[in-house]
Amino acid sequence: MDPTAGQGPLGGVEHADVLMADGLVTAVGRGLPTPPGTQVIDAAGKLVMPGFVDVHTHLWQSSMRGGCADRDLFGWLAACNRTTFSRITPADMYRFVRLGALDSVQSGVTTLVDWVDALPYDTTVQYVRALTDTRVRFAYAMFQDERGTPLIARTKRELIDPLPLASAQVATHAARPLQGLNRLHWEIARDLGVMLNSHVLERGEQHADDPVRVLTDIGALGPRLLMNHAVHLTDDELAAVAAHDVRVAHCPLSNMRLASGIMRLPDLARRGVKVGLGQDGGTNDTSDVFALMKAAIGLQRARALDPAVFPQVHDVLRIATIGGAEAIGMADRIGSLAPGKCADVIVIDPAALNFAPRFDWVNQVVFNGRPENVHAVFVGGRPLKLGGRLVGVEPDRVVREAEAAAARLRATT
Amino acid sequence: MDPTAGQGPLGGVEHADVLMADGLVTAVGRGLPTPPGTQVIDAAGKLVMPGFVDVHTHLWQSSMRGGCADRDLFGWLAACNRTTFSRITPADMYRFVRLGALDSVQSGVTTLVDWVDALPYDTTVQYVRALTDTRVRFAYAMFQDERGTPLIARTKRELIDPLPLASAQVATHAARPLQGLNRLHWEIARDLGVMLNSHVLERGEQHADDPVRVLTDIGALGPRLLMNHAVHLTDDELAAVAAHDVRVAHCPLSNMRLASGIMRLPDLARRGVKVGLGQDGGTNDTSDVFALMKAAIGLQRARALDPAVFPQVHDVLRIATIGGAEAIGMADRIGSLAPGKCADVIVIDPAALNFAPRFDWVNQVVFNGRPENVHAVFVGGRPLKLGGRLVGVEPDRVVREAEAAAARLRATT
Repeated sequence: MDPTAGQGPLGGVEHADVLMADGLVTAVGRGLPTPPGTQVIDAAGKLVMPGFVDVHTHLWQSSMRGGCADRDLFGWLAACNRTTFSRITPADMYRFVRLGALDSVQSGVTTLVDWVDALPYDTTVQYVRALTDTRVRFAYAMFQDERGTPLIARTKRELIDPLPLASAQVATHAARPLQGLNRLHWEIARDLGVMLNSHVLERGEQHADDPVRVLTDIGALGPRLLMNHAVHLTDDELAAVAAHDVRVAHCPLSNMRLASGIMRLPDLARRGVKVGLGQDGGTNDTSDVFALMKAAIGLQRARALDPAVFPQVHDVLRIATIGGAEAIGMADRIGSLAPGKCADVIVIDPAALNFAPRFDWVNQVVFNGRPENVHAVFVGGRPLKLGGRLVGVEPDRVVREAEAAAARLRATT
Repeated sequence: MDPTAGQGPLGGVEHADVLMADGLVTAVGRGLPTPPGTQVIDAAGKLVMPGFVDVHTHLWQSSMRGGCADRDLFGWLAACNRTTFSRITPADMYRFVRLGALDSVQSGVTTLVDWVDALPYDTTVQYVRALTDTRVRFAYAMFQDERGTPLIARTKRELIDPLPLASAQVATHAARPLQGLNRLHWEIARDLGVMLNSHVLERGEQHADDPVRVLTDIGALGPRLLMNHAVHLTDDELAAVAAHDVRVAHCPLSNMRLASGIMRLPDLARRGVKVGLGQDGGTNDTSDVFALMKAAIGLQRARALDPAVFPQVHDVLRIATIGGAEAIGMADRIGSLAPGKCADVIVIDPAALNFAPRFDWVNQVVFNGRPENVHAVFVGGRPLKLGGRLVGVEPDRVVREAEAAAARLRATT
């Protein structure tokens, strides 16, 4: 994913080795010498690439997969999201997050950003534990209302900072009626030195709350701001986003499912806005970054009637990896297979009925890839999936426990 | 998939048995008696439904997966399709079709319609053999130019009619410059008592060839006509399609990939047009009916900004099964689990990291399902996939042979 490292816009190298040590990529190239004690994983004929970066999800929403499938954002929030979230016990939160996190990892996600609504501290403990047990790299974006905001710094200090794979963000909903809270969140984010992460203009009706104006007024526009969805930006708002280097999470499958619309991705790209892809938890309903990439391309093409519209195939593969890393300010550590970066690596096996034969591997990753083709996943050099199977996980048990948790949840309605 | 058979718009029944005998479904219901000698397959906790009907594909295009991914229809036809098709040897045609057919079957397709451009007879023999060896139910739609048209009847008589799972169609490209050939194809279809199967208005530019007018002029408008894509129908054309009970194949993932546009599915549905879903071979690039269903819903929602737009979740599941069967005139034999119909059945295992826990199984089939969740596939009562694995097939060998065929093909350019 570095054009200076090899061929084409993504810097591909054929027949190369990837050397990992101490959680980092230490070398990439042909015929690398193998230091003593190195474990060799034969990936001949396979595709080795950086893991996917999911810049916007809500893993707990595995608790209501398929829920309220006939609703738009507002209907879904009212009938499914709000009625579910607050009723999940700490122990069952662990089970839902664990399910969602493992589903992400098995499909090749190595870093994810989880936007989490206000939770009591003991539930947060379980949420973070589920992510940690999954060993995925994550940014935990915390929302709290005025009363709860002290929990943000406490959670960061006690639960996030000690974890090598975790980082913190502050979550908000930018909206005129919440401007005071938005300002408080922004101040906390600044004090903690982390990103502010806000849903923005997922629906056009949300212009009534003027979120971009609010974020401007509180001084949050800048590279430390991540806007999720941003489907309905006006020309002026788009110009402001670009001028201030604001980051954007694009969630095309969620935008399709919730009838949110087709975001102005080509306009954002033309102005150099850093964009990543997001699964968006329950409204995407499955962790399939391949489907997400295809949707990001196809949605623009279906509207423009022009296959030259942004994103091209290499663009979307870039967005799903190093582009996402740039969007969340982590490109110095993840997103490409460069010496010194974290060893967050996936191996795709193209020798499958749905993928072979070779014509153009890059195009085939995007248009033919499925989660089941992800042969191996490494985060920080640790194998989470090998030979097509999650390492040290009993998926049947995780599923069974999530089913039991869901049954308890339904019983409380 | 029959609202009279059970609950909801799709006629679901919980804890039901499906009895199959002599290739047919003989009973569906709770606690069915088991005739002596019946093999019992335990599907407790799983979802049993009719197999998917893919009403438009080109399986040979597995030879160029990912190909020309930056082109629209015309560019793709010129740079990938035409340069590939004519160079495939009979023996290698078998290998590509076999790969594509197995990929379809493993993802739950039990009936498919393959639109095949003009082939010499010996290549047709191999094409049909690959489909037959896969044991999928298929309609073989044959195109031939004037000189070759006698091959259509001969192929039907010699290769298709003897096969219990096969039926024939006549393929054409409706266009003013080809009107004479279109008329000949229609006459042959009528004489043979089969459907005429034509690409129609996949791109707006094709209005220049006035395909709907041509089909009208030759008298082909009617229930024996299947139009593929039909993205750019005018109001008048749409009215004519509806008035004559013309059938339509909708290929949303292909339409996205090739920048063909968003078809007027809600308008077609409002007028009662019978529509099925199509993978469209190489321009869809993978056999994932779940992704296809999601795209059919999401594309309309993203345009309409309204989740109530057609199709709803149950609509699209219907279109992918009994709707497709209706579109190709086979609803008396396939498309639902009704006594007397062919035992074309799939079993989905929801106990997976990407699918559980239960919230709404119908919604989850569409929004969460992946090919890997297809646990079993039966065509005419014969198991083609059991326990998540294809029966009697070595996928590695099929892939290896397709790779070798692709290498030979590339060597001839």
